[in-house]
Amino acid sequence: MVFTAAEISALLQGELVGDPNAKVHNIAPIESASKGDLSFISNPKYEKYLTETKASVVLVGKHLSSDKPGLTLIKLEDVYTAFSTLLKQLEQMQQPGKTGIEQPSYIAPTATIGQNVYIGAFAYIGENAVIGNNTQIFPHCYVGDNVQIGQHCTLHSGVKCYANTQIGQHVIIHSGAVIGSDGFGFAPQPDGSYVKMPQTGNVVIDNYVEIGANTTIDRATIKSTHIKSGVKLDNLIQIAHNVEIGEHTAVAAQAGISGSTKVGPNCLIGGQAGIVGHIEIARGSKIGAKAGIGKSIATEGKGWSGRPAIEHGQSLKIQAITKKLPELYKQVQELEKKLNKLSNKGESPNEQ
Amino acid sequence: MVFTAAEISALLQGELVGDPNAKVHNIAPIESASKGDLSFISNPKYEKYLTETKASVVLVGKHLSSDKPGLTLIKLEDVYTAFSTLLKQLEQMQQPGKTGIEQPSYIAPTATIGQNVYIGAFAYIGENAVIGNNTQIFPHCYVGDNVQIGQHCTLHSGVKCYANTQIGQHVIIHSGAVIGSDGFGFAPQPDGSYVKMPQTGNVVIDNYVEIGANTTIDRATIKSTHIKSGVKLDNLIQIAHNVEIGEHTAVAAQAGISGSTKVGPNCLIGGQAGIVGHIEIARGSKIGAKAGIGKSIATEGKGWSGRPAIEHGQSLKIQAITKKLPELYKQVQELEKKLNKLSNKGESPNEQ
Amino acid sequence: MVFTAAEISALLQGELVGDPNAKVHNIAPIESASKGDLSFISNPKYEKYLTETKASVVLVGKHLSSDKPGLTLIKLEDVYTAFSTLLKQLEQMQQPGKTGIEQPSYIAPTATIGQNVYIGAFAYIGENAVIGNNTQIFPHCYVGDNVQIGQHCTLHSGVKCYANTQIGQHVIIHSGAVIGSDGFGFAPQPDGSYVKMPQTGNVVIDNYVEIGANTTIDRATIKSTHIKSGVKLDNLIQIAHNVEIGEHTAVAAQAGISGSTKVGPNCLIGGQAGIVGHIEIARGSKIGAKAGIGKSIATEGKGWSGRPAIEHGQSLKIQAITKKLPELYKQVQELEKKLNKLSNKGESPNEQ
Repeated sequence: MVFTAAEISALLQGELVGDPNAKVHNIAPIESASKGDLSFISNPKYEKYLTETKASVVLVGKHLSSDKPGLTLIKLEDVYTAFSTLLKQLEQMQQPGKTGIEQPSYIAPTATIGQNVYIGAFAYIGENAVIGNNTQIFPHCYVGDNVQIGQHCTLHSGVKCYANTQIGQHVIIHSGAVIGSDGFGFAPQPDGSYVKMPQTGNVVIDNYVEIGANTTIDRATIKSTHIKSGVKLDNLIQIAHNVEIGEHTAVAAQAGISGSTKVGPNCLIGGQAGIVGHIEIARGSKIGAKAGIGKSIATEGKGWSGRPAIEHGQSLKIQAITKKLPELYKQVQELEKKLNKLSNKGESPNEQ
Repeated sequence: MVFTAAEISALLQGELVGDPNAKVHNIAPIESASKGDLSFISNPKYEKYLTETKASVVLVGKHLSSDKPGLTLIKLEDVYTAFSTLLKQLEQMQQPGKTGIEQPSYIAPTATIGQNVYIGAFAYIGENAVIGNNTQIFPHCYVGDNVQIGQHCTLHSGVKCYANTQIGQHVIIHSGAVIGSDGFGFAPQPDGSYVKMPQTGNVVIDNYVEIGANTTIDRATIKSTHIKSGVKLDNLIQIAHNVEIGEHTAVAAQAGISGSTKVGPNCLIGGQAGIVGHIEIARGSKIGAKAGIGKSIATEGKGWSGRPAIEHGQSLKIQAITKKLPELYKQVQELEKKLNKLSNKGESPNEQ
Repeated sequence: MVFTAAEISALLQGELVGDPNAKVHNIAPIESASKGDLSFISNPKYEKYLTETKASVVLVGKHLSSDKPGLTLIKLEDVYTAFSTLLKQLEQMQQPGKTGIEQPSYIAPTATIGQNVYIGAFAYIGENAVIGNNTQIFPHCYVGDNVQIGQHCTLHSGVKCYANTQIGQHVIIHSGAVIGSDGFGFAPQPDGSYVKMPQTGNVVIDNYVEIGANTTIDRATIKSTHIKSGVKLDNLIQIAHNVEIGEHTAVAAQAGISGSTKVGPNCLIGGQAGIVGHIEIARGSKIGAKAGIGKSIATEGKGWSGRPAIEHGQSLKIQAITKKLPELYKQVQELEKKLNKLSNKGESPNEQ
């Protein structure tokens, strides 16, 4: 397919600077684009490529410009969102949604299957499970007894939902994610062994949530582990039992949140960060990659980093000085020598 | 179902303080319980809720009391274990164990299947595999050739056991766990490439082990990776080849143990902790969340934290001073200035 | 099976010291070997066991020797590679490759299946997928539409390859690995919600790559996430969208590499390390376990550790001094006191 710069600019409601008839037939990253490619710059790190890119058309922020011959710009308020609109169009052309029930699959007689649904081969739908309209269940998914899945959801191949899980609408879950596994609760006994704490609750996932590949969300001991609307979880994340994650909080890969912790809405949690159990994280907190959060965060909207985590600005100061520790150590030893020398000198008259 | 406080107290052999006829029909966390709910307090963090909870009956430790009208307490030696007894009852009422062989499933002709077993649809049982009595194999499990699984085990949907894995009795394995994948062993070659070290051993799992969702346990290069009786592994844990984990050791989510390391019995290993290969961890060691253990731990029963990990008490001291580093740095610079001034003053007479 | 020391020495082209007729019928680790076992020492940590091992034959480096009666040594240039040759022989005797198509499996009518292929029960091969000769697809694998898999590959049970993934030859992928899940890209909106950035690219995996259990590799937003020839990835690793990993780089378990980062060839990345997005790591870099890499590394072949990571030698110095921080802090406070005393003394004459 071929599009002109004018067509794309009209679709995205941008400001076209250059040749409205410039043609593109492909999308490529700015640093590796060729003639005929459309590209974009939303991260300032990549602005340096604007002078050297071979792309024919580039989506840019309002503040950028170029007089490179043969380069057409489409200026936009929000490049990243505009680019997502464009990719959405492309994706729909490439991968039309699947429908129908492939065989062999297993659908319990008491299950309820909506309209226009895709159920892939080897998918398992348990007793009393409900699958909403326009939802896609890819091969090898396990939908346990009494699980409810709303409309317009996608469960990619191999998602496992334990019994009683509740999933809202427009939810996307990637391969290998496990929803509703037992929380990690054991009562230690006097002889050093453990008695398992049965996990009788479930997991509730609200609308517009996306859950990454091989992420695990444990069921509650009692009541529910709750992932609220618009939450985005990356891959390989651990969400323990009875955790609650507020609206539109985004969590990067390999982070872990321990049992019964409540994370507020609109937080950003960095990759490989860890949060202990039984605490609360205030709305809009920004937790750095690899941070270790050991206490509740009460003030909203602040950045935190380090282990144990402290406010990000202070953490940067400490990092800077930590790098200088060898010199600081040496300096202190020399100060001590100098002081001793001076002190001896000063005291010598008294000693005589 | 409705129970009275007296019935529950009798079941748990507790001391009832309040109304023996108080009725409960549900279980809820202490901070969100309503009238008619039973709740519990085992973590001191939650004791503050005792005065404001709306629960009708609360399981508490011997040291707690309340004169709140309408609140009945059941006092217990070990609240957490008692609560697990209660949940166990509830669980058995809610989810009776599954039995029977669902179709389509794949059972090799040479496999041996015990009595009263559940084999879910799309489960795969390989050649010469043995499944013990009363064991449940959920849909999409892979039980490779020659795998032996004992009695009263549960493999949740999508567990993968490579060939020759041996599993004891009363073992629970959660969805997506991989048992017996190849250890990570490669011989570096002069040209920078690697030759794969074949992994010809297996994984042996003893009785009463629980393994969390998406946890991975690699087979041994030779002989066995060994998870001993009563070990509890949370989600997303990495256990490398030839590792040995002693009885009743519990490991929290996302921790990793590198090749050939031997962890003693009764250890507690925190979330996201990492342990290098070829070392030994003494019995009863407590390793903090995110700790990095780079050397053997020879003394039993101590706590360790930080990276590289040191004894927990010392680690806390270092953390406290690390927070003060910016002031310490400033202090040293001022000391130096002061000392130079003093020193110049002191020396000036000699210079003249 | 029984082999003599002479047969093994001839196979490995080693130098035999001891009894050429010494018989072995098993392979065991040096510290637990018995009479009739063959063992090996490649890690210097295990050399101490040479005097006490009960093994009959041991593969050792050229520098080792022993006059223990009944112990035969085979001296080798590269013990680890020689041992891998031996295990390879053993493995081929133990586990002959599987072939044939088990039922029920799902193979789309437009898929192309090569010669001498194994397709396990419950495997799913999508539209236009291509499976090369001599490749093994174990049960429960998902091979999405248009996926291409070359010759001599092994996908263990439960591997998931999203649509359009391309895999070269001699690639091994372990159970639960997810190839081609959506990259984590969302455009934040003024109201705090997110718009999903469609991920329209794919994952390309070159020859001789090995990918560990439950590792996740996200598809590119546009173009390809690219894992180059000879790369070895351990278990539970996160590779984000548009990442590129150079030839023969090895990554240990639970490490994570963020979006669009380019890792050079021949790097070693330690367990639980994390690398931020949009940076470049120079050829031959050695990144320590748990390191946090926040900036590009331009110099080739250096070691890095800590968080934020610095050169390994400097990092060790800082670690050593960090351990002494409590004493350093005390020392500075005492210096200050001493200096104040001295200063008062020195100044007192002037003040009078």
